[in-house]
Amino acid sequence: MAKKIAAFGEVMMRLQVPRHELLTQAGTLHYSFSGTGVNVTSALARFGHQGYLVSTLPANAVGDAAVSYLQKLGVTQSFILRDGKYVGMYFLENGFGARPSRVTYSNRKESSFNTAPDGTYDFEEIAHKVDVVHFCGITLAMNESVRHHMKTFAKAVKENGGTVVFDCNYRPSLWGEDGYEKAKPHYEEMLELSDIVMMNEKDAMFILGMKTNKKDRQEQLKELIPVVAEKYTISVIAGTHRSINSNNTHSLQGFMLKNQTFTFSKTLSFSVYDRIGAGDAYTSGIVHGELQGFSPEKTVSYAAAAGMLAHTVAGDTPMSSENEIFQAMTESVGDVER
Amino acid sequence: MAKKIAAFGEVMMRLQVPRHELLTQAGTLHYSFSGTGVNVTSALARFGHQGYLVSTLPANAVGDAAVSYLQKLGVTQSFILRDGKYVGMYFLENGFGARPSRVTYSNRKESSFNTAPDGTYDFEEIAHKVDVVHFCGITLAMNESVRHHMKTFAKAVKENGGTVVFDCNYRPSLWGEDGYEKAKPHYEEMLELSDIVMMNEKDAMFILGMKTNKKDRQEQLKELIPVVAEKYTISVIAGTHRSINSNNTHSLQGFMLKNQTFTFSKTLSFSVYDRIGAGDAYTSGIVHGELQGFSPEKTVSYAAAAGMLAHTVAGDTPMSSENEIFQAMTESVGDVER
Amino acid sequence: MAKKIAAFGEVMMRLQVPRHELLTQAGTLHYSFSGTGVNVTSALARFGHQGYLVSTLPANAVGDAAVSYLQKLGVTQSFILRDGKYVGMYFLENGFGARPSRVTYSNRKESSFNTAPDGTYDFEEIAHKVDVVHFCGITLAMNESVRHHMKTFAKAVKENGGTVVFDCNYRPSLWGEDGYEKAKPHYEEMLELSDIVMMNEKDAMFILGMKTNKKDRQEQLKELIPVVAEKYTISVIAGTHRSINSNNTHSLQGFMLKNQTFTFSKTLSFSVYDRIGAGDAYTSGIVHGELQGFSPEKTVSYAAAAGMLAHTVAGDTPMSSENEIFQAMTESVGDVER
Amino acid sequence: MAKKIAAFGEVMMRLQVPRHELLTQAGTLHYSFSGTGVNVTSALARFGHQGYLVSTLPANAVGDAAVSYLQKLGVTQSFILRDGKYVGMYFLENGFGARPSRVTYSNRKESSFNTAPDGTYDFEEIAHKVDVVHFCGITLAMNESVRHHMKTFAKAVKENGGTVVFDCNYRPSLWGEDGYEKAKPHYEEMLELSDIVMMNEKDAMFILGMKTNKKDRQEQLKELIPVVAEKYTISVIAGTHRSINSNNTHSLQGFMLKNQTFTFSKTLSFSVYDRIGAGDAYTSGIVHGELQGFSPEKTVSYAAAAGMLAHTVAGDTPMSSENEIFQAMTESVGDVER
Amino acid sequence: MAKKIAAFGEVMMRLQVPRHELLTQAGTLHYSFSGTGVNVTSALARFGHQGYLVSTLPANAVGDAAVSYLQKLGVTQSFILRDGKYVGMYFLENGFGARPSRVTYSNRKESSFNTAPDGTYDFEEIAHKVDVVHFCGITLAMNESVRHHMKTFAKAVKENGGTVVFDCNYRPSLWGEDGYEKAKPHYEEMLELSDIVMMNEKDAMFILGMKTNKKDRQEQLKELIPVVAEKYTISVIAGTHRSINSNNTHSLQGFMLKNQTFTFSKTLSFSVYDRIGAGDAYTSGIVHGELQGFSPEKTVSYAAAAGMLAHTVAGDTPMSSENEIFQAMTESVGDVER
Amino acid sequence: MAKKIAAFGEVMMRLQVPRHELLTQAGTLHYSFSGTGVNVTSALARFGHQGYLVSTLPANAVGDAAVSYLQKLGVTQSFILRDGKYVGMYFLENGFGARPSRVTYSNRKESSFNTAPDGTYDFEEIAHKVDVVHFCGITLAMNESVRHHMKTFAKAVKENGGTVVFDCNYRPSLWGEDGYEKAKPHYEEMLELSDIVMMNEKDAMFILGMKTNKKDRQEQLKELIPVVAEKYTISVIAGTHRSINSNNTHSLQGFMLKNQTFTFSKTLSFSVYDRIGAGDAYTSGIVHGELQGFSPEKTVSYAAAAGMLAHTVAGDTPMSSENEIFQAMTESVGDVER
Repeated sequence: MAKKIAAFGEVMMRLQVPRHELLTQAGTLHYSFSGTGVNVTSALARFGHQGYLVSTLPANAVGDAAVSYLQKLGVTQSFILRDGKYVGMYFLENGFGARPSRVTYSNRKESSFNTAPDGTYDFEEIAHKVDVVHFCGITLAMNESVRHHMKTFAKAVKENGGTVVFDCNYRPSLWGEDGYEKAKPHYEEMLELSDIVMMNEKDAMFILGMKTNKKDRQEQLKELIPVVAEKYTISVIAGTHRSINSNNTHSLQGFMLKNQTFTFSKTLSFSVYDRIGAGDAYTSGIVHGELQGFSPEKTVSYAAAAGMLAHTVAGDTPMSSENEIFQAMTESVGDVER
Repeated sequence: MAKKIAAFGEVMMRLQVPRHELLTQAGTLHYSFSGTGVNVTSALARFGHQGYLVSTLPANAVGDAAVSYLQKLGVTQSFILRDGKYVGMYFLENGFGARPSRVTYSNRKESSFNTAPDGTYDFEEIAHKVDVVHFCGITLAMNESVRHHMKTFAKAVKENGGTVVFDCNYRPSLWGEDGYEKAKPHYEEMLELSDIVMMNEKDAMFILGMKTNKKDRQEQLKELIPVVAEKYTISVIAGTHRSINSNNTHSLQGFMLKNQTFTFSKTLSFSVYDRIGAGDAYTSGIVHGELQGFSPEKTVSYAAAAGMLAHTVAGDTPMSSENEIFQAMTESVGDVER
Repeated sequence: MAKKIAAFGEVMMRLQVPRHELLTQAGTLHYSFSGTGVNVTSALARFGHQGYLVSTLPANAVGDAAVSYLQKLGVTQSFILRDGKYVGMYFLENGFGARPSRVTYSNRKESSFNTAPDGTYDFEEIAHKVDVVHFCGITLAMNESVRHHMKTFAKAVKENGGTVVFDCNYRPSLWGEDGYEKAKPHYEEMLELSDIVMMNEKDAMFILGMKTNKKDRQEQLKELIPVVAEKYTISVIAGTHRSINSNNTHSLQGFMLKNQTFTFSKTLSFSVYDRIGAGDAYTSGIVHGELQGFSPEKTVSYAAAAGMLAHTVAGDTPMSSENEIFQAMTESVGDVER
Repeated sequence: MAKKIAAFGEVMMRLQVPRHELLTQAGTLHYSFSGTGVNVTSALARFGHQGYLVSTLPANAVGDAAVSYLQKLGVTQSFILRDGKYVGMYFLENGFGARPSRVTYSNRKESSFNTAPDGTYDFEEIAHKVDVVHFCGITLAMNESVRHHMKTFAKAVKENGGTVVFDCNYRPSLWGEDGYEKAKPHYEEMLELSDIVMMNEKDAMFILGMKTNKKDRQEQLKELIPVVAEKYTISVIAGTHRSINSNNTHSLQGFMLKNQTFTFSKTLSFSVYDRIGAGDAYTSGIVHGELQGFSPEKTVSYAAAAGMLAHTVAGDTPMSSENEIFQAMTESVGDVER
Repeated sequence: MAKKIAAFGEVMMRLQVPRHELLTQAGTLHYSFSGTGVNVTSALARFGHQGYLVSTLPANAVGDAAVSYLQKLGVTQSFILRDGKYVGMYFLENGFGARPSRVTYSNRKESSFNTAPDGTYDFEEIAHKVDVVHFCGITLAMNESVRHHMKTFAKAVKENGGTVVFDCNYRPSLWGEDGYEKAKPHYEEMLELSDIVMMNEKDAMFILGMKTNKKDRQEQLKELIPVVAEKYTISVIAGTHRSINSNNTHSLQGFMLKNQTFTFSKTLSFSVYDRIGAGDAYTSGIVHGELQGFSPEKTVSYAAAAGMLAHTVAGDTPMSSENEIFQAMTESVGDVER
Repeated sequence: MAKKIAAFGEVMMRLQVPRHELLTQAGTLHYSFSGTGVNVTSALARFGHQGYLVSTLPANAVGDAAVSYLQKLGVTQSFILRDGKYVGMYFLENGFGARPSRVTYSNRKESSFNTAPDGTYDFEEIAHKVDVVHFCGITLAMNESVRHHMKTFAKAVKENGGTVVFDCNYRPSLWGEDGYEKAKPHYEEMLELSDIVMMNEKDAMFILGMKTNKKDRQEQLKELIPVVAEKYTISVIAGTHRSINSNNTHSLQGFMLKNQTFTFSKTLSFSVYDRIGAGDAYTSGIVHGELQGFSPEKTVSYAAAAGMLAHTVAGDTPMSSENEIFQAMTESVGDVER
């Protein structure tokens, strides 16, 4: 029952300072390539589906390295174009305990993906070939031209009977001042085109401007999310509540609203090795559960375990197999596996 | 009062993926050489005894590297033969938190050690030269020819008045289906030849097929182990109970049965840096305590502290001196030592 | 005019000691995955074709790492099965000047590829899907079962009108005593099935037992190779003459016999960074030239330049694009390219 | 309101074994240069002041590397002389959990700093140029000639109206047998010259030989430190109480006595990445608070947070900006900062 | 006789692939910071002068790392502003033998330096403080605003009686199509303001459009350069002729025209470790010779030796002391220096 | 015919900057332990003899690491004492082409070896147990107490009928001003006690003050060395003539005077990877040849090949087996050995 899943998004180069050093202290960087679309499609490829990335990369040594890296992750290249000049980059300095991790971006605005002109992609053709397409709010924040690509693609998939997944993923620094106001109409357009949406009560309140008198996060969630689902006719809305404990472990609870019924996972608590990209693991778990016809209980539990494991693996991109996630769902932490 | 201690066993090459990466992600490996016999004899060498390994390694670059590594650990080479073609290898991927460590073996069945023909070793001569010999259940699982070496050697030492140490160390994956049935007669032969045995109640129940109505581990232990000691006339039986706590620390309690009296160490709880080989540190502590004539209380406490420290050191092989273990027995965790 | 090219062969894990250290001195290894089939198909994928590997890898962490690595190289996975237990490995210690490089093999005889049972591969189906298939003498040396796979596959491709490429690649250490005698009938079977053959006069003399009174290599070549081409009805025979100069540079001259006419490349002299796999780069150049319909002059020149560049790149696998090879054919060594 | 702050002290080379390996196991070392004076002046430079080091380094490759490293840290070189032959060195093996970190010194007694002859430094000139000078008890332990430099310098600054900071920092291993007796007169001389002193109740009891009937650390502190302040007319005495918790986190509470009034920071608990040099971060926080005219509450809170953050950063030398420290004072541990 | 030398130019981050690997193959990068201005001022600082960089860097982690790196090199920070968002970057893949090194740029056009608005720098103040200022043709290629800064600064220095050094350094890829036409007027403006110019006959022919019937490089040089010196009233014109030998060594001959008299260095031949930045070492040698009043013979010889040594050192930035260059001028290659 | 060979000498820690970087540029060091005595005894151990080191190392982490390292090299520990405080260290920066390698020493004068008091070693006992003892001129330069040890040991071996080997190895920097005058009487004492001496004509002229009118090195050698042999009744005098070629290769010719007859090896030319310690490889070749009763021709050829190979291996210590040296004596540079 393998499906074809495309994601539309930018490939970024991650330049990570080794260990817990600062960029000022070190002399080497570990590099890899990622992005929300990369993370989701490669995770789904690892679960047995075929994952396509729809993106643009330059025809130079950096673009070559990105393509090789995506191939290594099992992402299919057919819809990656080679044009433009640059790859967006970010530097990651790992925090430790009381010192938070720090991300510094290079100028991604001029990247191949963000400067790809109208008509770059043949969305009609792609829409015919795939079952599911994944979008993310980061992409929506880029510029008008990228937004146009995104909406055109979503419509094409919708019209071809495919499933549209949209992860709200609002990043304040990308939208700038009055960001929520600017973002709202674009988010609404995407929500109307979407079947599966990743969001929580904060997105409802801040992006969509919804009001509630509830103070508790979970009560806010239960009040607002069903309204969103109904208003934009969204089949599945899923997301997580995360908190950072005083001993530096993180806690995560997943939820999913389907047929106006909420399902919650257990609250998982765990040590964190690499925080970045863990949200995409949760998304890929939800999508996989839906594609495989898991029960909502199994789906949220699977997604939460996928999210937890992604915190224990180096790099942005989830690396766990379906089997490893099933194991993590049922078993306690084990000794060495021989 | 330094003694001469030989161990009979395979030398394996450990190929460890750096940090917490997967083999799929990394590009380099750290390598070292180890094995139960290596770990026990080098630990005892570090305590002031002379440790010999009785084994076979190929006469090629890998064998040379293994020999150099053992020399570095202080293991005496006199009884290591250079023949055959291969060294057994295993890959180690370090887990993190909710993700367990993973070991993948290469084909050790064709290793120099496991293919050494009859008559390879002059066990009579070695038995004359050493005071103690150490064997382990992993070696017993290899093949008929290795088992034959092992029993011949044990008998030779026994006849020469030496002490035979046997660590049950049953590995299900090595014995395959109906493993316990296959293993039982070989284990019984070894137990009859042994003076000091490392085992716990699980070995009694699963390998020797003993029954008990008790549910609690410690009660099972207290019922079964004295029976084993009597039946096979074993002077000392020792072992540990280990558990993994929810915060990823491990807890360890050592025990020892001598003159039909049990002695237990305190339960130690500690963070784990490198799990592999820690059991061998415990064994070497018990053997050292017996050789030095420590009281049972001191012996189990020493062995448990040796086991705990082995979890804090990189690699399979214990690296602590007698002094460092004494310190760990008495002091709380300290600040930097200058 | 991209073609589909399959190769049948083992994937090996290369474990390379860093810099110019010995295995006895170092503590880390760089690892990668390669093999003649891997090298040839990934080189041809880099030239714009689709490269498939027909092979078997275990379903464990080492197999996963191998598959990821091949994906990174652009090799298509569709015909790689996951079965058996092991991956063949070799250690590489880089020489320096007067000290030659040294390769030490692990036991590859029990690898997934070499133990794959009859009926493992659906050669008929594959033969329908590909235009060219590549085999190599190393595979022929493995065992009877592998040879049976190989010949069955070659016949299937031949019958389906595909092109069979065979690289003689005789390795004395793999055939053992009286190796040439044992090898001859198998080589002859393969030669009869082949359209493009990589070999030189030494293969004719030693494997096929042909005689010549000539003393000079090139004269031997010119006498013997046309006889081989005629006897086994081979369209193209190509190969190289290599020598090591006193200043540690290597010299390489490529040749090709087609329509009973010899074409020779210029003799190229160059510094060597990584010797292993350079022959496969030459092979892929010859195959590419034939597939693209290059003139014989262009083909040998292209293949020789591809071989030269492969000596300047880390790892077994050629990494040069068609464009970089064209540049190396025409230009002198250049300054930094900005 | 940037000030000019000089420190008088030795620059040492830190040779750190990577990860948690022992010197016996590893083959590489990370090196850096530090010292109490280096740490304090570079921290103050990072807070916006100008930091000078008054020291001597050899005119060779090691001295060059030290100077480059200090420049990188932002320490001004004007008062560093190049003479003598050696740099003091120490090896650091990182502990893990139950295993403490271990420091092994090379022979620093013959270092350029410790053998600099009388008349090496023009203290009069320096005293005219700087506002504050920092000394430390480690320097006081070196030898008579260094002590003479130190006291001469302190007097010159005092006479020029500058502020003298003295960190007691008594190291038993440096003073040897009857150390407290030997040290007392030198400490008293320094205390009489000092305006800001880093010490706690243990220094009062052990170095100054003061008596108390109190058992509790904080009560001892409250009884003894005001007496010290009065006796030696010291404006500010500050220090910390540190404890190591069973889960390997550390707890730290800062205090400051000013105008005979004690101010205490909250007790901070945190995970430790690099213990060494954290005391110097606390000192630099106190000095900065005093120079900036912070309230005592803000000063101790700032100093304690600076100390805490220094435990989370690689190397001896504090790397946090004023802003990062303010953040750590007010916020709980955060998620990734993008 | 130390002078104050400023350079105006961009600081770039160099991201170098280790060893001779490709970006597609490796997983780590070595990083450093450089630029023509950085290289020249730090080289002159190493010769005993005070070197200032006039530039702009962002106030983020990358900017901090750049500043620390420049401090390490001994460049004085006083005229470096912290504004804008980005640092220009380039990736360097080291070639080997027949395979040239390859540089891939990130989008530097949006760097802090290239987007610094008018009025950013107080050139009047700087011009008062420095003796010499250095500019380079790469900076001239950036954009109109940067060119405006550059010319304003040159005029200010000229008017204050300082010395203007200009290195033509024409990079075709930066000027694009019809680059020479676009560049000519800007170059002419700079030449009119300059006292010391780095260029050779190619710059005269291609940028300035001068004609000659001579075929030989040296004859072209001797015909054209004196005309340039006269036309633009330049005191000193210096440069090099470089060639790459078949054994991968490089040959370099320096020249200098002063008072209409040519002086040539010996032609030096040498192995190359790191090609980038070697031209800046030559420039710094010429400037140092002029500042110190060396004879023309000594100056070109010093500059050529400085250039040669810069090829033997890692990184863009020259690291040799005056003493090491004098040694290289007079001695043959030596054995280990102990 | 394995012999027991002791060497008396210091163990030093080598701290090598990676690749070709300067200490100012890098952040990591590779460390190992060596010394003339270490190099010679471990080389002879590799040739099948038993090698003992007579030395003193501190009982701390650095001493432990040194001992482990020597064990790894196959040096027997029985005569290594653990006392004193320090290990001598040196930093090595690898040169490249025109830039020579550079060694910077730490203060070895206070090392455990150099401060070992009278009566530390039981030379009588050792002399009874060994066949050969090796000394070196570096040790002779240390201090009066070390010289006293050395001469006492040499006499004890001589009286017990053992063979005394002495390598002149005069290091000007260790003897200081008027070094030759100071050194001469000590060298003469050692020469009178020695059977095999490593030296060449320069030692005769400079240390012993001998005169010659010859200009050519080889003629000087032929005139002076036989006089030395006769005067001090030395059985074998051997040494090398080395030169550095313009292409950075080195040339080496070995010689040996025995029974007043000179034997010369071929002049070998080769690329150099690690220069340090290559002289000790030559020495060990001469000693091995004499112990095995090789003909003088075979001995010098073996020693020269051993010296050549030592230049191709990382670290100070020769790593070649007897077999590898025989291969290098007879064969030209080979391709990869599989």
